[in-house]
Amino acid sequence: MSPPGQDAAAPPLPAALCVLGAGLIGGSLMRAAAGHLPVFGWSPADATRDAARADGFDVLDTLESALDRAGRADALVVLAAPVTAFRDLLRAIGKATPEVRLTDVAGVKAPVAEDVAELAPHARYVGSHPMTGTARSGWGAGSADLFVDHAWVTTLEETSSVDDWAPIAGLALTVGSRVVPAEPEAHDAAAARISHLPHLLALALAQVGQDGGALALSLAAGSFADATRVAGTRPELIRAMCEGNRKPLVVALDDALGLLGVARGSLASSGSLGRIASAGHEARTAFEGRLAGLEPITLRGDEMVEQLLALGSGGGYVTAIGAGADGLTVSGMYPTGD
Amino acid sequence: MSPPGQDAAAPPLPAALCVLGAGLIGGSLMRAAAGHLPVFGWSPADATRDAARADGFDVLDTLESALDRAGRADALVVLAAPVTAFRDLLRAIGKATPEVRLTDVAGVKAPVAEDVAELAPHARYVGSHPMTGTARSGWGAGSADLFVDHAWVTTLEETSSVDDWAPIAGLALTVGSRVVPAEPEAHDAAAARISHLPHLLALALAQVGQDGGALALSLAAGSFADATRVAGTRPELIRAMCEGNRKPLVVALDDALGLLGVARGSLASSGSLGRIASAGHEARTAFEGRLAGLEPITLRGDEMVEQLLALGSGGGYVTAIGAGADGLTVSGMYPTGD
Repeated sequence: MSPPGQDAAAPPLPAALCVLGAGLIGGSLMRAAAGHLPVFGWSPADATRDAARADGFDVLDTLESALDRAGRADALVVLAAPVTAFRDLLRAIGKATPEVRLTDVAGVKAPVAEDVAELAPHARYVGSHPMTGTARSGWGAGSADLFVDHAWVTTLEETSSVDDWAPIAGLALTVGSRVVPAEPEAHDAAAARISHLPHLLALALAQVGQDGGALALSLAAGSFADATRVAGTRPELIRAMCEGNRKPLVVALDDALGLLGVARGSLASSGSLGRIASAGHEARTAFEGRLAGLEPITLRGDEMVEQLLALGSGGGYVTAIGAGADGLTVSGMYPTGD
Repeated sequence: MSPPGQDAAAPPLPAALCVLGAGLIGGSLMRAAAGHLPVFGWSPADATRDAARADGFDVLDTLESALDRAGRADALVVLAAPVTAFRDLLRAIGKATPEVRLTDVAGVKAPVAEDVAELAPHARYVGSHPMTGTARSGWGAGSADLFVDHAWVTTLEETSSVDDWAPIAGLALTVGSRVVPAEPEAHDAAAARISHLPHLLALALAQVGQDGGALALSLAAGSFADATRVAGTRPELIRAMCEGNRKPLVVALDDALGLLGVARGSLASSGSLGRIASAGHEARTAFEGRLAGLEPITLRGDEMVEQLLALGSGGGYVTAIGAGADGLTVSGMYPTGD
């Protein structure tokens, strides 16, 4: 087989791309996809439409006209608006283009899947979470390379169709991402641990530092600066993200409180931090090495959804998708048994 | 007055510098001080002495010969060995050079001050904590610019002499640091909040991430990578640092557990993270702005120790020291009342 990332065949793509919302993620996706397939979009904000048009992008004035065109072009519709707007968008989609290809880029996946099942049940939906971002937001903050070398989660359930998945995963590959298949609930549990909990810890740490007064902030540097960085994100964004994934976040937070509580007891009694120091260091080492030691793997044949989910849950990812007469052939990278 | 950092007069320096231990901090200090005053040192390790000598530094074979020379040269002796070696070093100093100028570079200050008072009570001691470092260690990891633009804490107590403080603070200025005067206990309380607690949180978070399995580590990026970075430090170094500052660290950890416990309760009941999100964000903003809005200040006259401690505890730092016929004149930066 070809080395990963160098497969000669281009991945499958939808016939066109219709991005609803042209902020950081939506605007970056429009830029990254342009040149690979027809791209258009919609934004409710005059200023955003003007800015995107000034950069040469086709952004329609009304949701209705965007969905109408998406239906005629068999476009993939991408929900790239704030999650709070999703239910209204899904209602419109359920009426105007009920069987459209559909994905979204929200940071929580199970609640969105439920909303889609309720409001646009016939849409050919596979959820997305491009795990990337910057501290800035809006059309002006976007860039074509925002997705390069980042994980892009595609959600699959037992009832999902790989034919719906392939063009969405193909789009993610086209913009440079590692495609990680995952069940929505598994994504949300993982995101709570590796994204939402870090935000909560950063917020608490920033406050403990400040409570130490001017001297403490004056001395703070390296470890404090890194560990509190995401507390600089706008509070309403942190709240939307964390509160939207409440149950898995409580589980992750309880795990952290448990580990810290044991360490506190040990520190106060015997004075030892041996356990948390060795286990935490080993975990960080595992994180640093997570992409090393992967080897190429090829998936083909029946039960492709199950094969893809096993790939993702085992720490692997998709690097290429080929569509042949006998169905999909998926190339990926997967941890060796070492 | 001259702008800060551009004062014409060079700061006071000791007559010579004797560094005991030539690892990352000691080795960097030798490099940074060379050219400004006579520098020599000692290391118990053959390989370290050889490496330092190969770089042109004067590193003696025995502690006895180093202390003998320090006494004759009226050198400032710097304890730059691991803290676990301090008591042996202090016993030797108390016998060989009881009234020597003395500092140390350990990350905890009150316990060292107690050891000095017990074992070398006549030494002209002012403690130091250069708040800098790298992930690497040993002579080879050192560099002359390690201290530039970092805080260098100098510890003072009511009984301290500014004449002992001035050449040590002058050395810190000479190697490019901001000099922050602080009482030993205040330093240790602050360090627990802004350095040792971040290490504990990083260790716990790394483990919670790993407990999420291969998918969680595969999706982890930005926030997780930053927030767990210091968990990559060698566990024995984290333990030595955190366990050596046990009591203040328990206080800081309890503060963090309190904030996180309240957030957990709120998240599980009302679902809201409003309180921790706004307070944590405001604290991070205060941290980011801690060095903005400082204005030049000049200290002179009586009660200089009290003036210096007020400067440091208020979030200020020393930028220059001038010695005149009527005593010290200290230039610094101090937060405005805005």
